[in-house]
Amino acid sequence: MQINTLAIYGVGLLGGSIGLAAKARGIARRVIGIGRSAERLAEAVRRGAVDQATTRLEEGCAEADWIVLASSVSHIVELLPRVAAVCKPAAVVTDVGSTKATIVQQAARAFPPAGPVFVGSHPMAGSERSGVANASADLFESACCIVTSTPQTPEEAAQRVEQFWRALGGRVVRLDPARHDRLVSLISHLPHMAAVGVLLAGAALDEDAEILATLLGNGFRDSTRVAAGPPELWRDICLENREAIADDLARLAEQLSQLAGQIRGGQAERLLEQLQRARDFRKRLIP
Amino acid sequence: MQINTLAIYGVGLLGGSIGLAAKARGIARRVIGIGRSAERLAEAVRRGAVDQATTRLEEGCAEADWIVLASSVSHIVELLPRVAAVCKPAAVVTDVGSTKATIVQQAARAFPPAGPVFVGSHPMAGSERSGVANASADLFESACCIVTSTPQTPEEAAQRVEQFWRALGGRVVRLDPARHDRLVSLISHLPHMAAVGVLLAGAALDEDAEILATLLGNGFRDSTRVAAGPPELWRDICLENREAIADDLARLAEQLSQLAGQIRGGQAERLLEQLQRARDFRKRLIP
Repeated sequence: MQINTLAIYGVGLLGGSIGLAAKARGIARRVIGIGRSAERLAEAVRRGAVDQATTRLEEGCAEADWIVLASSVSHIVELLPRVAAVCKPAAVVTDVGSTKATIVQQAARAFPPAGPVFVGSHPMAGSERSGVANASADLFESACCIVTSTPQTPEEAAQRVEQFWRALGGRVVRLDPARHDRLVSLISHLPHMAAVGVLLAGAALDEDAEILATLLGNGFRDSTRVAAGPPELWRDICLENREAIADDLARLAEQLSQLAGQIRGGQAERLLEQLQRARDFRKRLIP
Repeated sequence: MQINTLAIYGVGLLGGSIGLAAKARGIARRVIGIGRSAERLAEAVRRGAVDQATTRLEEGCAEADWIVLASSVSHIVELLPRVAAVCKPAAVVTDVGSTKATIVQQAARAFPPAGPVFVGSHPMAGSERSGVANASADLFESACCIVTSTPQTPEEAAQRVEQFWRALGGRVVRLDPARHDRLVSLISHLPHMAAVGVLLAGAALDEDAEILATLLGNGFRDSTRVAAGPPELWRDICLENREAIADDLARLAEQLSQLAGQIRGGQAERLLEQLQRARDFRKRLIP
């Protein structure tokens, strides 16, 4: 895989790591950072994540053979028609958005059948840390990178995007955008919101934070870690994937109400059954 | 701290680690393992967690100056009168049970004011792994070890038990048993049951486990890890601490229903507020 000019819109954790990985692995001859904040772009240049930077979309895209939109979902949706209008006819455009149905639908409108191609991606390599300061050339090492395609996606372009993520170190999985959103709600958005719920329930109790801090162990730390992520990003994810997440949350609330009832009622056998069922399901996913 | 003969009832992860740590740190001259399974006791001897072992409670307690009950909460409750009846008058008895109100109440009945003393403990060093095979002399290093006392607890005995956990490497916190159960529900039991709920909600969806396994990342792994723990142990914990846990779970279910409503209704500002509130609360606990 050899890209002449790679443009990355958004030089945060993911965008910055794409730049670092592409340069470390010799995938891109030149990397251009595009973004809204000159300061963040300057940091990305200093960290070596991009070779040059610009706040002007048109300038950044003009010579790019490959463009990655590494911004929030709502911003990616806004960017799509603007990028389609200014990029080279042979350019390949992809993204890193955590939900895919809306983005892929919008891209189908923005990118005409002939000309530049958009293929939606979701590298599952985010973390509760953000910003180029936390970017790393190894971020995609063994990470699951989902590439989405629809009957309208040119197969050759989808395969090139798969090759791109593999070249950055990722494991690639191909999914239909709607199925992506359904599965990712369960595997990523639901655990996130459960952690948010645990923290809100804790905050509502109004207990002494100092003593709680002394008592907490790895269990609390690990099970709530995801909820330390950027609130704006997660608001966007929730609203973009609202149907699946709201359904999963309602299902979770129902499960928890049932567990509360079993506990209050001392239903030892039923409770044991549920605890075993949960453990067995986890074992099937993580043997 | 120097104990002549230390008896440990239950040689699993916690009991085995107490034996290993006590020997590694020269705290106990002799360690006796007591339990129901000759096979598990033999493994504890092989691993060097105890020097000798017996399945007969009376024999194990007869010469012990210090006894740690490292079994499940319900079993500890059963053991208390039996231990009180056979141990030396000067013995100090403590435990590792994850809930404290019931155990301490039962101990107050079993242990007469003069004679051997019981002080309830809860070293927060468990994990989803169990058994002496996972025991380690370092398990209590920096772990929060809660020591409970009531107005009836002889202060000198409580201080000796605090000294014991410090000698094993732990950080000691003193709490009233009821407050222990309230706070631990929030900090340990609630995150556990939230993870159980996420897994049950996932299992209910009946999605392809293989594809879910491919997609899942550290977020899912970490946030559900606690639910890989022993179901019988957690059934007991839930039932022993039922009021606090059922209350917390109901509070969590309510929070999640509200979040689901905000997401479904597209209430972006309210949702952002909640995500920020959760993150801020976590930051207060884990700066």
